Amino acid sequence: MPPRTPLDADTILAATEEILRRHGPAKATVVDVARALGVSHAAVYKHFASKQALREAVTRRWLDRNRDTLAVVATDRAIPPARRLRAWLHAVLALKQDKIRREPELFAAYGSLAAAHSSVATDHVADLLGQLTAIIADGVADGGFRAGDPAATARAVMTATAKFHHLAHAAEWQEPGIGAELDEVCSLLLEGLSVPPTP
Amino acid sequence: MPPRTPLDADTILAATEEILRRHGPAKATVVDVARALGVSHAAVYKHFASKQALREAVTRRWLDRNRDTLAVVATDRAIPPARRLRAWLHAVLALKQDKIRREPELFAAYGSLAAAHSSVATDHVADLLGQLTAIIADGVADGGFRAGDPAATARAVMTATAKFHHLAHAAEWQEPGIGAELDEVCSLLLEGLSVPPTP
Repeated sequence: MPPRTPLDADTILAATEEILRRHGPAKATVVDVARALGVSHAAVYKHFASKQALREAVTRRWLDRNRDTLAVVATDRAIPPARRLRAWLHAVLALKQDKIRREPELFAAYGSLAAAHSSVATDHVADLLGQLTAIIADGVADGGFRAGDPAATARAVMTATAKFHHLAHAAEWQEPGIGAELDEVCSLLLEGLSVPPTP
Repeated sequence: MPPRTPLDADTILAATEEILRRHGPAKATVVDVARALGVSHAAVYKHFASKQALREAVTRRWLDRNRDTLAVVATDRAIPPARRLRAWLHAVLALKQDKIRREPELFAAYGSLAAAHSSVATDHVADLLGQLTAIIADGVADGGFRAGDPAATARAVMTATAKFHHLAHAAEWQEPGIGAELDEVCSLLLEGLSVPPTP
């Protein structure tokens, strides 16, 4: 591949992601990436000080794209908040199922960073929590959800749906009844969130 | 230790549990147990055909004791169902925290059987689900909880509290805020379970 001018961080990250997908994490080193780009490894090191920094940056970029996909659901005000909360939780599960199947190398990179409590992983969880908080705040604002602190409620909902997004449960996401099970938990949580109809 | 007459399964299991606690799983073999009891290993094999059968039986016995401890909370009708549900979920967490700390060998044996989808582990989960179903049925019967299938509701509540009892989350049980977090999830779930007060 001919060298691009100027060599920016994003070009390096795109190349790294491609290498990660095709050849796995062992090949996604600064030297391998420099070779693929036809540049010196010093040129790559100018942007990323280590393989670890490169790995974190590429995973963050991938997670940010996933976050943006989910934000489309979270911010769709055409959908009432109760239905939107359910749709969003299903979208989170569907995205993770899809990523495990189709982008296992990047998913594994995320898993390693989460296990090491990297800020890349905690920032992603915080991003998702922010989307959920916004949905709940919309529900409180339109009177459908009980008053309360939307951020605290979002934390409780995230915890109560851990089975459907926490990496420790990844093996269970391929079980055939998993979507129906999420639906049941959603129904129970929405009963708790919603203002009861006046009789 | 002198041989006991007659050598019954429970004597063998008590000795195996003691060996497991003191010397770890590597020493809890049929031969080691026979030696500790001063009997031939053929005498032990008459009751347990393999190390695996012995391991399963000793873990099942230990889990059944834990189940019985929790049943005391689950069946205490002096406590109203909503408070009892919360107390029971806290008791499950407290018991697991305690077992990890004080009986790590037996807890690890349970973890291995759960990972292998042994009936010992699935039966234990079914036992706990039965206790939770009974609490919810009591709440439906006294009119405090919404009508519905108590067994299905219990499954949803177990799933929604996975963080506090599923072995995949064991590392999180030592976090300082874990009890408060369970309390928040309980509050949300109880809002969903309870019949709203008439205004």
